[in-house]
Amino acid sequence: MAAHSALGALLRGRGVGALLVSHLPKIRRLCGFTGSRALLLARPRTRYLLTDGRYAEQAQAEVRGARVVIGDGSFCNMVRKKRLLRGIRRVLFESDYVTVEERDAWQEAFPSLSWIGGAQLLQDFLAQKTQGEIARMRQAQAISEAVFAQVLQIIRPGMTEREVAAEVVCAHLRGGAERMSFDPIIASGPRSALPHARPSDRCLRKGDVVLMDFGCFYQGYASDMTRMVALGDPGPEVRRVHAVVLDAHRRAVDCAKAGVIARALDAAARSVIDAAGYGPNFTHGLGHGIGLEVHAWPSVSAHAADRLLSGTTITIEPGVYLPGAFGIRIEDTVVLQEKGCARLGTLDRALTIL
Amino acid sequence: MAAHSALGALLRGRGVGALLVSHLPKIRRLCGFTGSRALLLARPRTRYLLTDGRYAEQAQAEVRGARVVIGDGSFCNMVRKKRLLRGIRRVLFESDYVTVEERDAWQEAFPSLSWIGGAQLLQDFLAQKTQGEIARMRQAQAISEAVFAQVLQIIRPGMTEREVAAEVVCAHLRGGAERMSFDPIIASGPRSALPHARPSDRCLRKGDVVLMDFGCFYQGYASDMTRMVALGDPGPEVRRVHAVVLDAHRRAVDCAKAGVIARALDAAARSVIDAAGYGPNFTHGLGHGIGLEVHAWPSVSAHAADRLLSGTTITIEPGVYLPGAFGIRIEDTVVLQEKGCARLGTLDRALTIL
Repeated sequence: MAAHSALGALLRGRGVGALLVSHLPKIRRLCGFTGSRALLLARPRTRYLLTDGRYAEQAQAEVRGARVVIGDGSFCNMVRKKRLLRGIRRVLFESDYVTVEERDAWQEAFPSLSWIGGAQLLQDFLAQKTQGEIARMRQAQAISEAVFAQVLQIIRPGMTEREVAAEVVCAHLRGGAERMSFDPIIASGPRSALPHARPSDRCLRKGDVVLMDFGCFYQGYASDMTRMVALGDPGPEVRRVHAVVLDAHRRAVDCAKAGVIARALDAAARSVIDAAGYGPNFTHGLGHGIGLEVHAWPSVSAHAADRLLSGTTITIEPGVYLPGAFGIRIEDTVVLQEKGCARLGTLDRALTIL
Repeated sequence: MAAHSALGALLRGRGVGALLVSHLPKIRRLCGFTGSRALLLARPRTRYLLTDGRYAEQAQAEVRGARVVIGDGSFCNMVRKKRLLRGIRRVLFESDYVTVEERDAWQEAFPSLSWIGGAQLLQDFLAQKTQGEIARMRQAQAISEAVFAQVLQIIRPGMTEREVAAEVVCAHLRGGAERMSFDPIIASGPRSALPHARPSDRCLRKGDVVLMDFGCFYQGYASDMTRMVALGDPGPEVRRVHAVVLDAHRRAVDCAKAGVIARALDAAARSVIDAAGYGPNFTHGLGHGIGLEVHAWPSVSAHAADRLLSGTTITIEPGVYLPGAFGIRIEDTVVLQEKGCARLGTLDRALTIL
């Protein structure tokens, strides 16, 4: 759907004369602006992109389908001075992004208007990617997969987790990434059992299993992947658990398609892990939406009731964590289609034994 | 001031029975917790740090002066289940960090309580650094200054701005930084006239001036510095403008001490640039507070009326930008003291001509 259709439908559906969009990834998707400070004001016939003088040149070059308004001070004052809400009585704003202080300032500046909060506005529109968006996500994924291959060449016992993480970042930036989509998780040996471990000064040892979870941004779009590496033979239990998690991953990929309810997809993977006796050790949801943000709607977890839409990109990342011993997670990003899903990368999911 | 004294004074001053702190850097300063999801609930006699199961072990290890509460679901539900607001009638929350949606959820869950918003709570407390905090900031600065020296060894005509930026990041991470405090600004030739330039694919050329603005986090604390490099003789105008900006920087450092009003410090630097005829080309404020966040209170700009407090760390970063030609900025981080200020680094401010 085009941006103006999505905005028009929202304005009509909520019975409001204007919408204020504060969430920067949404603004980028709606009009192309990539700066760090902006407000999009949408009226039925006209859209305005407000930003400040730092971005005057950039906004003129980037913005499509909205009039650029450059000004000093708060957006509230800019809207008042330019009378951009003239004739409007009801204004919809993003209650999940606007702070109480900001909303109070708007209400004070425009006391005669009705200020109506709405959460998760336009989330379907953002979730359903265009072919151009998918292409950028594939490129982000390709950069991350190339980095994984490079890291396999250098990772060895004696390096610390932080040293490996530094090399992961360097290889991404040298490989064309704009930036990382989150700080890499490099968790070795028993630390791999912490799902959100931060790289530490622990030295990798022979026989360690190493969990590597990372991703980057390319032209604004995120990658996110997790693979497991073992430094020499990690023993039979690691191999057994890895096989279980890989089965769960395959099952989820097989079940992922447009129209599935998120919790049913989570359940498909979880049932495999349950059957193997590791159910209590899969301590997080199966995945999350991804795109202009690395964590986006929809969540794919045991309680998520959303229906997954065609063109939506999500991660699939089952895991099993055995405290004090080790953890295994495998993660790919996929795009949902009418008859199934397509992985955005091509990397083998097997346990890499070096 | 100790955390419990600052919290006690705030509760008494606002006449409330409890305070909810949502802002993570504030939570870190108040109780030591460094995880990515938390709420601090402060009552006159007791403080509670709420987080989820992912951080159970970490919270037990890190938190000082607060009881750790681990739970599922929203913090609102956790507070209700554990009855952490029992006996309270008035609750203060951070209106500059809490969204309208979050506040509505609290009000709905506790309709009989008064929910009172306050902005910039505890900002004096956060701004005034302890000796331990200053030591970490000095270390962050030392890492960045060492990186600058390394970059001087490799920067040369033919490299792109993005390539230089990638090397800046790599050198920081290899040098012990936790992460960058913002994406490096590497702006060459005419692009240096854009104060917030993002590294581009422009190749550096002989004679270019290159603006390098970067910083990192070390043990949670940020560095932020800007230096100018020229690839061969940049010509007389660059040298002249650099001398003006350096004079302005020196003047500001000379005037910076506890008790000064922020806009007076800005004016001290601005008067030097005005006198040289470049006033209209100094298009931003002199600096900003820095600590657990790279941009923090207080702002040091032409309209900032705050009195600067002893122990506050701020950047001093005058700049002159000549559109289409070049820009010059020099930035150091300083700590304000009773009789002056101390720079947190030792790097020479001269124009480096390679």
